[in-house]
Amino acid sequence: MGDPFFHPVSGFDLPRFAGVPTFMRLPHVSLDDPRIKDVQIGLIGTPWDGGTTNRPGPRHGPRQLRDMSTMIRAQNGATQIRPFELVNCADLGDVAPNPAGLEDSMARITAFYDQVTEAGILPMTAGGDHLCSLPILRALAKDAPLGMIHFDSHTDLFHSYFGGTMYTHGTPFRRAIEEELLDPKRVVQIGIRGTTYDSEDRDFAQNVGVRIIPIEEFHARGVDDVMAEAKEIAGHGKTYVSYDIDFVDPAYAPGTGTPEVGGPNSFQAIQVARMLDGVNIVGADLVEVSPPFDTAGATAFLGASIMFEMLCNMAQNLASD
Amino acid sequence: MGDPFFHPVSGFDLPRFAGVPTFMRLPHVSLDDPRIKDVQIGLIGTPWDGGTTNRPGPRHGPRQLRDMSTMIRAQNGATQIRPFELVNCADLGDVAPNPAGLEDSMARITAFYDQVTEAGILPMTAGGDHLCSLPILRALAKDAPLGMIHFDSHTDLFHSYFGGTMYTHGTPFRRAIEEELLDPKRVVQIGIRGTTYDSEDRDFAQNVGVRIIPIEEFHARGVDDVMAEAKEIAGHGKTYVSYDIDFVDPAYAPGTGTPEVGGPNSFQAIQVARMLDGVNIVGADLVEVSPPFDTAGATAFLGASIMFEMLCNMAQNLASD
Amino acid sequence: MGDPFFHPVSGFDLPRFAGVPTFMRLPHVSLDDPRIKDVQIGLIGTPWDGGTTNRPGPRHGPRQLRDMSTMIRAQNGATQIRPFELVNCADLGDVAPNPAGLEDSMARITAFYDQVTEAGILPMTAGGDHLCSLPILRALAKDAPLGMIHFDSHTDLFHSYFGGTMYTHGTPFRRAIEEELLDPKRVVQIGIRGTTYDSEDRDFAQNVGVRIIPIEEFHARGVDDVMAEAKEIAGHGKTYVSYDIDFVDPAYAPGTGTPEVGGPNSFQAIQVARMLDGVNIVGADLVEVSPPFDTAGATAFLGASIMFEMLCNMAQNLASD
Amino acid sequence: MGDPFFHPVSGFDLPRFAGVPTFMRLPHVSLDDPRIKDVQIGLIGTPWDGGTTNRPGPRHGPRQLRDMSTMIRAQNGATQIRPFELVNCADLGDVAPNPAGLEDSMARITAFYDQVTEAGILPMTAGGDHLCSLPILRALAKDAPLGMIHFDSHTDLFHSYFGGTMYTHGTPFRRAIEEELLDPKRVVQIGIRGTTYDSEDRDFAQNVGVRIIPIEEFHARGVDDVMAEAKEIAGHGKTYVSYDIDFVDPAYAPGTGTPEVGGPNSFQAIQVARMLDGVNIVGADLVEVSPPFDTAGATAFLGASIMFEMLCNMAQNLASD
Amino acid sequence: MGDPFFHPVSGFDLPRFAGVPTFMRLPHVSLDDPRIKDVQIGLIGTPWDGGTTNRPGPRHGPRQLRDMSTMIRAQNGATQIRPFELVNCADLGDVAPNPAGLEDSMARITAFYDQVTEAGILPMTAGGDHLCSLPILRALAKDAPLGMIHFDSHTDLFHSYFGGTMYTHGTPFRRAIEEELLDPKRVVQIGIRGTTYDSEDRDFAQNVGVRIIPIEEFHARGVDDVMAEAKEIAGHGKTYVSYDIDFVDPAYAPGTGTPEVGGPNSFQAIQVARMLDGVNIVGADLVEVSPPFDTAGATAFLGASIMFEMLCNMAQNLASD
Amino acid sequence: MGDPFFHPVSGFDLPRFAGVPTFMRLPHVSLDDPRIKDVQIGLIGTPWDGGTTNRPGPRHGPRQLRDMSTMIRAQNGATQIRPFELVNCADLGDVAPNPAGLEDSMARITAFYDQVTEAGILPMTAGGDHLCSLPILRALAKDAPLGMIHFDSHTDLFHSYFGGTMYTHGTPFRRAIEEELLDPKRVVQIGIRGTTYDSEDRDFAQNVGVRIIPIEEFHARGVDDVMAEAKEIAGHGKTYVSYDIDFVDPAYAPGTGTPEVGGPNSFQAIQVARMLDGVNIVGADLVEVSPPFDTAGATAFLGASIMFEMLCNMAQNLASD
Repeated sequence: MGDPFFHPVSGFDLPRFAGVPTFMRLPHVSLDDPRIKDVQIGLIGTPWDGGTTNRPGPRHGPRQLRDMSTMIRAQNGATQIRPFELVNCADLGDVAPNPAGLEDSMARITAFYDQVTEAGILPMTAGGDHLCSLPILRALAKDAPLGMIHFDSHTDLFHSYFGGTMYTHGTPFRRAIEEELLDPKRVVQIGIRGTTYDSEDRDFAQNVGVRIIPIEEFHARGVDDVMAEAKEIAGHGKTYVSYDIDFVDPAYAPGTGTPEVGGPNSFQAIQVARMLDGVNIVGADLVEVSPPFDTAGATAFLGASIMFEMLCNMAQNLASD
Repeated sequence: MGDPFFHPVSGFDLPRFAGVPTFMRLPHVSLDDPRIKDVQIGLIGTPWDGGTTNRPGPRHGPRQLRDMSTMIRAQNGATQIRPFELVNCADLGDVAPNPAGLEDSMARITAFYDQVTEAGILPMTAGGDHLCSLPILRALAKDAPLGMIHFDSHTDLFHSYFGGTMYTHGTPFRRAIEEELLDPKRVVQIGIRGTTYDSEDRDFAQNVGVRIIPIEEFHARGVDDVMAEAKEIAGHGKTYVSYDIDFVDPAYAPGTGTPEVGGPNSFQAIQVARMLDGVNIVGADLVEVSPPFDTAGATAFLGASIMFEMLCNMAQNLASD
Repeated sequence: MGDPFFHPVSGFDLPRFAGVPTFMRLPHVSLDDPRIKDVQIGLIGTPWDGGTTNRPGPRHGPRQLRDMSTMIRAQNGATQIRPFELVNCADLGDVAPNPAGLEDSMARITAFYDQVTEAGILPMTAGGDHLCSLPILRALAKDAPLGMIHFDSHTDLFHSYFGGTMYTHGTPFRRAIEEELLDPKRVVQIGIRGTTYDSEDRDFAQNVGVRIIPIEEFHARGVDDVMAEAKEIAGHGKTYVSYDIDFVDPAYAPGTGTPEVGGPNSFQAIQVARMLDGVNIVGADLVEVSPPFDTAGATAFLGASIMFEMLCNMAQNLASD
Repeated sequence: MGDPFFHPVSGFDLPRFAGVPTFMRLPHVSLDDPRIKDVQIGLIGTPWDGGTTNRPGPRHGPRQLRDMSTMIRAQNGATQIRPFELVNCADLGDVAPNPAGLEDSMARITAFYDQVTEAGILPMTAGGDHLCSLPILRALAKDAPLGMIHFDSHTDLFHSYFGGTMYTHGTPFRRAIEEELLDPKRVVQIGIRGTTYDSEDRDFAQNVGVRIIPIEEFHARGVDDVMAEAKEIAGHGKTYVSYDIDFVDPAYAPGTGTPEVGGPNSFQAIQVARMLDGVNIVGADLVEVSPPFDTAGATAFLGASIMFEMLCNMAQNLASD
Repeated sequence: MGDPFFHPVSGFDLPRFAGVPTFMRLPHVSLDDPRIKDVQIGLIGTPWDGGTTNRPGPRHGPRQLRDMSTMIRAQNGATQIRPFELVNCADLGDVAPNPAGLEDSMARITAFYDQVTEAGILPMTAGGDHLCSLPILRALAKDAPLGMIHFDSHTDLFHSYFGGTMYTHGTPFRRAIEEELLDPKRVVQIGIRGTTYDSEDRDFAQNVGVRIIPIEEFHARGVDDVMAEAKEIAGHGKTYVSYDIDFVDPAYAPGTGTPEVGGPNSFQAIQVARMLDGVNIVGADLVEVSPPFDTAGATAFLGASIMFEMLCNMAQNLASD
Repeated sequence: MGDPFFHPVSGFDLPRFAGVPTFMRLPHVSLDDPRIKDVQIGLIGTPWDGGTTNRPGPRHGPRQLRDMSTMIRAQNGATQIRPFELVNCADLGDVAPNPAGLEDSMARITAFYDQVTEAGILPMTAGGDHLCSLPILRALAKDAPLGMIHFDSHTDLFHSYFGGTMYTHGTPFRRAIEEELLDPKRVVQIGIRGTTYDSEDRDFAQNVGVRIIPIEEFHARGVDDVMAEAKEIAGHGKTYVSYDIDFVDPAYAPGTGTPEVGGPNSFQAIQVARMLDGVNIVGADLVEVSPPFDTAGATAFLGASIMFEMLCNMAQNLASD
């Protein structure tokens, strides 16, 4: 049943609206806390949106995700998995970004995740904008490129913005492929849609072998079929999962800076995460939740629900090793 | 064409934003009004949320449901039923709860519904939280246990909370079965989902014979198939319909205290109510609408639309007797 | 590649949150500007809601649609159409209505569109409430009745309101048929639903030959089948497209005055507009976006996305002539 | 202690969030109800904003004012007046306006108030926009011009708008003076401020003898001094009180369509109403509360609090006759 | 400079939007943590609103107060006091209430504060509704009645509600005086206003010697004069400070359940707390912040600012002992 | 009466909710437009918040300020100044920032203002965060240091943040003094308040001779006295006016990222701007309006009203030269 220290506080003991809000009511274990050596999955906030080209806000994401995650209970209602009894999970706190320093912030994120990986902890990240994924991958893919299953309405594969700016939330995976942090042949992007500046990103994807599944194909084929292909692309190797909340239709996830209409509903949003079972996930993130556009917290609650589904799969994997 | 006294005010005579808002613009007939003897279906508010374990607010539900129900017109666009011409409907006002007295409030609700049933009126309730259903059932099931068709994302079958508290909005139907107000073999719960504390509620359901249709099954089988089974379970006997607005996906019904993502959309939410035709409904409720989380009134409008569909079926039943 | 003067400002040059907001960041070309002679499609605001019988607000629609339309980029992600390179598009500004004068406002709208059609410009209108469509049709259908593909949850075919008032947002197409601006046999209305006062509008439709596709039929048959029939009804003749945002389910489009639950989702909302390819569109409108009920701008963003899809088809048509 | 039929429902008997919301929880007595003959002060809604030149919404005012007025209790905390025991007060319901007919709406309002005055009832109106005051004055000033104490940030004395439109919410008192419904020498306008089109309204005021007290003078002299002068101007004759909620600073009253910054705070807003004691008030209104801009209801609550203060003075006057 | 363990996290090290939010970014020290023995002032949440008679929500207060308190920095800008260097402060977490058990919740609160006082810690409470103050006083006034300086718009001195209910947020200080937890002669209530049911509470106050300073007197005399009298009434004995956020005008503090217009502004709200210097404060609370009515967090930020001012005085007192 | 080309569109011709929104409905004249040579005062947006250390959003400020500025009419109600007839004013559009490049953005701002000053135009800026003032001053103070009257709740005089970051919205005037863009002896800061990290900024101010007037002094002395001193400090030399909207109390200006309670009300906020008459203003800005925190637009409307007051004084100065 696992170490009780790592069990979340039950809503039967302390009502879910009460208490200092940590991710899923888990214990807060800092990197310098001796108990860090027992942590297997670490939930981490990267409160930074320095790469955002339009409407800012994801820097506030981790706090709101913590808040709404207090509504998550101990057991997955569909799969009956009880992740917090399978492995030791903890809230590792937030990386300290520099809101006025883009490269400094990226270096701080990589340094934090270096410590996490050195401690043998699998990171589950709550962003932050999508540029956060790049410095995380720099820590996680030190040894070899990773595969990636990527849910999003945008490819984030653009070359540059604003006359040559290389680091924005529209470019992280272009950089990650150039830096050989990702193996493009093991990368799949699901849900792509919306208007575009041009086709430069899709041309790049085609050239390097990234598989793009646009939303029209997603709706036509259905979740089961799409996810089967995605898992085949990722294969058995180490895989990163990056989940941009704008993958989901804005009716379900209004709290984000660059929404695109016509996306999946919340049941599908959960299903795709649940169907990651068996994938060799070495890290995952849920990014682009923007509280200033999410006044009622619905987006953060959906985000926390998706994080829980991914966590169940990661915990199941670890426990079955 | 029915008694014109009981016809709602038309939007052609008084614009729908004008006038004192009663349920569906019906006449307000108090229990001590002589016209009460002519009422066949009574719309009643139970503005009480004393059983709410997390985010409060449903005490404000009846008022907002009245407000948004002024947008309901006289005729069902799909079935052409004109319920207010088939039977005499009226707004019976609200039960007076005691916001600081849990058992007192339950007693007051039962006493109110005792009068309603004694007057031969079928009650259509606007909650309030889900604990309200228990004192209502105490009045309605005086003679024999009822069947129940129950739409919800939670079973509300838990034994107790907070170290032995027996009456919360998570326990009403556990109590109702224990008190033999419901016949568990004629109870079906549709749409169950979300994380759970444990499986204690589902184990109980299985033991006593309550049929649970989780949301995954609902989405896989479709509305027609699920509702056919539900009606078979309820059978021809007296049946209560309890509709928790959190059955619906929070994108469509954000104004509720314990949302769970992945639910039905609003078309399905209406369909399941419409498909209750022929069921021997002796009372119905629509609960857990929480205005503080429903700033734009969308949830209340959906709730009023669902109430209207249920009302059409109840009116049709009565008229065809 | 078209005249660069008419290209929208790129988000790579000026971030999308910056700059004076015109429709889709196009140049603002007034009717008295010499460049008006080069415009092929004109985006026009009709900020007027004098025909609104319930909740007002669409007078603010054009401004919010301009604001959110700055998030539209140059290329259709699904069809790869780049409309602003195919034809010259411009923001022609707003008609000046008289908020306290109903007939005066209608006359002003017709006068404005008379100039637009005389200049050989196809108008794409951002309403305003649905009564705006009537004075627009008076300008566009001067020579002969038009066909119409109409997306809405209401028929807007009622005879009159409030004891004989002939001009409201519930009557424009009754008037348009009476005035022979529309050929009823070439009119199709898609998505009709919700409660109704009575069947007077539907009886009229049946009598004159307007085809109504209620939402139940829409959901049962699917988008492809419905749109095939719609295009057959409209035929090859000149056709107007009128898109009331309340066609879409209020979860996706909360910002409107007379919502009806149970409508299409945003993917379907986009699909039906995309499937207008090949229709001989001589004018289109997107009406009933009501900013006071759309605090987060989601409805306006969806509305702008729909306008873009319709625009792509209009541009493609013109370019292929 | 007055007729108990006319006492509001106590929050000790029915919590203030419960029940069908009438003005201040008074009985709803229609004009055709036999009890109308016993009513001394009638609270009436005029849900109409057809004269609004900018942001609409006051048509929703009466409903929200009813809702928030349920928070008003039986006794004035400062003066100890218990108005509902002094005189018989009732909610007379709403005038039925024609949202698409300006002159028709004005005629309907005058006709309603004709009945009210014929019944010997003093009207306390909840608007609606400020144009509502004109048709009310047409009923109240049938015999002779009235004096007026007018709280506002605008004079509402303009000649016309939009090229000759004579009836908007910026012109009612110009018309009322021209129609000899008001005696300009007994009219005082308090709180005037903000940018203006020009000085045409103030020139008119000066010519006919209306006294304008701009906000700078109000703040410099203080409430006591200003109100002493106002009462002197109104004198002992029959006086109408017109209170536009935009008199108050928008921080206290955000829910209005044409706010002007720099106004009084809520304490001063209450004080000026309380200091109307002794004025011979034959009717009063509280207008321009616009719920779409008042999401939290603060403006309506302030409006209801002001109505209560005015009511206390009217009741005291009647009782001491 | 105090123990660095107890210093809040600086916004220069971790931006203020980052990190797990504790009160004022202080360390979280549970009652069973060994460091508890070093704590001098404990910040505690009482997330409970079981005594609320109208609009609920204060159960969510502690979490939102924690969130907004992260904007409080280390030093008082006006007095230069740096409280966290003067004494050891910590976030002691929340009392676990029973949302469905009124007497159980009160017992749990008293039990928690018993431990706090036994540990020699001065409690600074974030409510919760005002009924929370009663069980706190039961722990703090074990030995002898306390004096109290009470900021509020209501006296909270009523005998009972709803036909004999003794425990609501309108009765705590009636009970506290009856139970001899407060010495009525050393109690002063400041800011009382609004409509009332009757004068029963004020009659009681007068009989037992509680001094009420209504808002009219407050505004007329000014802050300095009023606070001088308040401090004289409290004297040199042990004194509790109870600060209901509805003391402040709702324009400054909209997020509360029972607002009354005409209150102090935010500068005065801060001043009265700052002027508590020298008072022998043995405990303080800030109650009735209701997040569902405080969408933008302004009320919680004001509440946190007031808590900081009170804390500065408590710290100064302790440090100068 | 000035050049009619530069007169704003009247609300009598085009209702204020209609039309493409430019600042105060002035013509949009780009830097490359030939009419730029006739412009005397240019309204410019700097949509950039790259220096924001806490809650972002001011990048959206210019658009919302344009929107709400459409409610400003032609004439100052208090002073009767008609600025747009005194001098030629125009909307010069927005500087194009680089949202992901801090130093690039500052260089772009300076380059834009270099052109403005070379064209002999006085700039009135709508921010943007407060760091925008630094690159503006670099253009305006090329020849000699300026004086500055600065309204704010913060000094913005800090040395650095986050371990040595020199450019944030907390440091612009430290840098400006170091770079000799400001003459510290001619700088006055009014309204300073709130908690602080330490006294480093105030020590610096004292050392170099910047005069700080904290809010306590402001409230004690009153607006007239404070502004007389401020004008004396600025003297007759060239003076920049920098107005941070967080100078105003958050009840009046909630839409800002770093509010501090206890500030001036909106009347005082207007008064201080009006009392700048006679000051030799060579540029002014209104910064830190943050639309994501200003859902109802109240802050932007206040900001536009303040800009209008400053503009009146600038226009009067120019016209009287």
